[in-house]
Amino acid sequence: MLRVTIWNEYHHEQKDPIVKKLYPEGIHGQLASFLKEDFEVRTAVLSDDECGLTEEVLKNTDVLIWWGHVRHDAVPDRIVERVCNAVVSGMGLIALHSAHHSKIFKRLMGTPCNLGWREDGDLLRNWVCDPSHPIAKGIDRFFDVEHEETYCEPFSIPEPMETVFIGWYEGGECFRTGVTFKRGNGKIFYFQPGHETYPTYYNKYVQLVIKNAVNWAAPILRSDNILECPHIQKTDY
Amino acid sequence: MLRVTIWNEYHHEQKDPIVKKLYPEGIHGQLASFLKEDFEVRTAVLSDDECGLTEEVLKNTDVLIWWGHVRHDAVPDRIVERVCNAVVSGMGLIALHSAHHSKIFKRLMGTPCNLGWREDGDLLRNWVCDPSHPIAKGIDRFFDVEHEETYCEPFSIPEPMETVFIGWYEGGECFRTGVTFKRGNGKIFYFQPGHETYPTYYNKYVQLVIKNAVNWAAPILRSDNILECPHIQKTDY
Amino acid sequence: MLRVTIWNEYHHEQKDPIVKKLYPEGIHGQLASFLKEDFEVRTAVLSDDECGLTEEVLKNTDVLIWWGHVRHDAVPDRIVERVCNAVVSGMGLIALHSAHHSKIFKRLMGTPCNLGWREDGDLLRNWVCDPSHPIAKGIDRFFDVEHEETYCEPFSIPEPMETVFIGWYEGGECFRTGVTFKRGNGKIFYFQPGHETYPTYYNKYVQLVIKNAVNWAAPILRSDNILECPHIQKTDY
Amino acid sequence: MLRVTIWNEYHHEQKDPIVKKLYPEGIHGQLASFLKEDFEVRTAVLSDDECGLTEEVLKNTDVLIWWGHVRHDAVPDRIVERVCNAVVSGMGLIALHSAHHSKIFKRLMGTPCNLGWREDGDLLRNWVCDPSHPIAKGIDRFFDVEHEETYCEPFSIPEPMETVFIGWYEGGECFRTGVTFKRGNGKIFYFQPGHETYPTYYNKYVQLVIKNAVNWAAPILRSDNILECPHIQKTDY
Repeated sequence: MLRVTIWNEYHHEQKDPIVKKLYPEGIHGQLASFLKEDFEVRTAVLSDDECGLTEEVLKNTDVLIWWGHVRHDAVPDRIVERVCNAVVSGMGLIALHSAHHSKIFKRLMGTPCNLGWREDGDLLRNWVCDPSHPIAKGIDRFFDVEHEETYCEPFSIPEPMETVFIGWYEGGECFRTGVTFKRGNGKIFYFQPGHETYPTYYNKYVQLVIKNAVNWAAPILRSDNILECPHIQKTDY
Repeated sequence: MLRVTIWNEYHHEQKDPIVKKLYPEGIHGQLASFLKEDFEVRTAVLSDDECGLTEEVLKNTDVLIWWGHVRHDAVPDRIVERVCNAVVSGMGLIALHSAHHSKIFKRLMGTPCNLGWREDGDLLRNWVCDPSHPIAKGIDRFFDVEHEETYCEPFSIPEPMETVFIGWYEGGECFRTGVTFKRGNGKIFYFQPGHETYPTYYNKYVQLVIKNAVNWAAPILRSDNILECPHIQKTDY
Repeated sequence: MLRVTIWNEYHHEQKDPIVKKLYPEGIHGQLASFLKEDFEVRTAVLSDDECGLTEEVLKNTDVLIWWGHVRHDAVPDRIVERVCNAVVSGMGLIALHSAHHSKIFKRLMGTPCNLGWREDGDLLRNWVCDPSHPIAKGIDRFFDVEHEETYCEPFSIPEPMETVFIGWYEGGECFRTGVTFKRGNGKIFYFQPGHETYPTYYNKYVQLVIKNAVNWAAPILRSDNILECPHIQKTDY
Repeated sequence: MLRVTIWNEYHHEQKDPIVKKLYPEGIHGQLASFLKEDFEVRTAVLSDDECGLTEEVLKNTDVLIWWGHVRHDAVPDRIVERVCNAVVSGMGLIALHSAHHSKIFKRLMGTPCNLGWREDGDLLRNWVCDPSHPIAKGIDRFFDVEHEETYCEPFSIPEPMETVFIGWYEGGECFRTGVTFKRGNGKIFYFQPGHETYPTYYNKYVQLVIKNAVNWAAPILRSDNILECPHIQKTDY
């Protein structure tokens, strides 16, 4: 059974009554509630010792899910380093919504990961670009998220390995809402839906996509060899 | 000065009064009218001898622009072969709108190039994914086409080399409207706008993008070597 | 259990005593001998009715393996069309060695797939570019093929989705020996080793890679929808 | 005229008599000597104030060339940040040889950029994968570097945008020796040749490739907009 760690900065849910009402157990709690049907789930939050992301935890995590928004800078650089090493060694990473600006995602991308944004609760319609991608399994041509924060292009990421979804917003914007990358041994999925003031993580399609993404991002090879630059010897042939 | 050949099946303009009125000189004529400001332009149509695409014409073409819709099958396979050889040897190709289904584009892609479509004259808003791409030069965050046929995902092309534009349609769809590929020495740009019943090729942004695309698709190397599979000799080192 | 069909032109083994001795049951027979340990295997050859590739056979094939060399042109275009439709619908394809020039591979690539070649029985050392790719599972930094036909760059394929192996030849050449592509729903792996006059398909690493590739290329989604270009209706939102 | 800044840690040339003899003006001096034929060239070294890379210098640099080996850590993080911002804003970057481990290159890649290495002065033969790439202009099928440090796969970079060269080493290794990336508006070329104890930068093919790379990496768009994450307003359509 795949081992998933859900990380959340867990800020809005404690400060903002609307968010608290939507996610009484935190966004991580809601994510855990449906992921535990299929996976072995643990959660970690910013206020935990070591952000809840010790070497031990990471070693025992197949896929890490990340949600953060206004406290990105509070994650210490040494934790970021540790997580990035885990990813390049093979741990999967799913960056949700405003995690586009997390230190971890930006560092793995090598770009600012900026975008345009507008918060009007627009309908978001996610269109499937590749119906045969494992992450789109069970989705027909598109799926809707009734209300979402609008993100729009240009999204300053490197050209993705695969464009799984592109999204249409009611008010006139569009955005690459589901894209994959590989960094070292690790697979990465960025997925746009999940603004804290909307009940996005109760949407059954969003839940399906995240479950699919966990299965897709599971390590093929988990190895620290990639962190070394070996001096090799000449082989006779 | 770059040499551009504009190919058009030239069917609707002769059969349909609405299209005739919009494009009295043919779609190729309208494309030529603004391209000749910057390039040496020639046109060719389906009814021309050899479809207007002799070896001589192709040899003297830096970038070929293709518009076709309902007469794709009327282009003989040997012409398709000739054009594909020119592209892989280095000639640029710009496939416009319904040319997604031309024999030439499908053959260079290796996929069916299918998509969903709807003809309601929706507003199309093209968002720039990569502002530094030569094809997006002079475009701000987006540009609009007032009325366009709607195309939607999934668009069964191989993952593009670069996604330059993605498009938003008023009625709820989105689509990768500007994408690049390379096949052999040749650069290829697919660009969605251009349904025959709308005045799309009078839109100044559409014109700018097509001009940019010609400059981008110009050959770096034009060489038939790529059509050979050479028997090499062992080199001493 | 995945269903594998191995296709072979089966020419050299019947004409050339050296090849006959190496592969008394045909190259397809040797491939079958180790693949049947893990998969449900069937074989088909050029002289079979319909080349052994009826709609029924393809419908019941998860992954097709292709070996051809001097009889590429003998495969009728309608069979090629049928196989390509199966691939874009989701069937996996593994093109071995000289299948770089098969009609099927060239058509799915959209390029001539040319390369340089030299037949001196050089040692080929395949280096792993991505140790975490499922196709490289169980391979360390490299694996050797004692004698192989030399292929060299430029190899006129489109930029691969993933470069799994690059190969070094004793005499001074190198080549991208293991590369992946996706066309529609179908996954494609090209693998260089396998000249008919060397015992390449007895090499345990080559066997491992081919088994890995079958597992990797297995369909995620098998659907004919991709062969249609649907007229959609405006959805209310 | 394109403005090139050549950065060098300038260490070995001052410490090691062999390197000093090979490059009496420093590696940067030798690079400058042939680049100034075609470009406006300036040089900067680690010991310069601000590493010679002030905002002013970067603003006036179209393409930055980077050579470093044993003093990567001596480049302060704020300088790295500054250079990375310049690259994503549009400045080109050419990372030479051991710059695969520079802070700047690793940060733009998001991976460890490790590889295997061996220092035996092997012949390196660089094969052209894409003869029509601007960086390969003027190179035939391959070019040799008589003696070079051997680098070998796996090279833990993200899948390149384009594989321009792959290299063959006399002793049995191969490596992707010339690869391109895009990060934000900036184009990046990594090029393997250039170990300090060999006269690599006197090789006319190496010089040609570096000149080609400068032309290729020149900014299309230089804009700080990419460093912002704009709050957009709903547009009426």
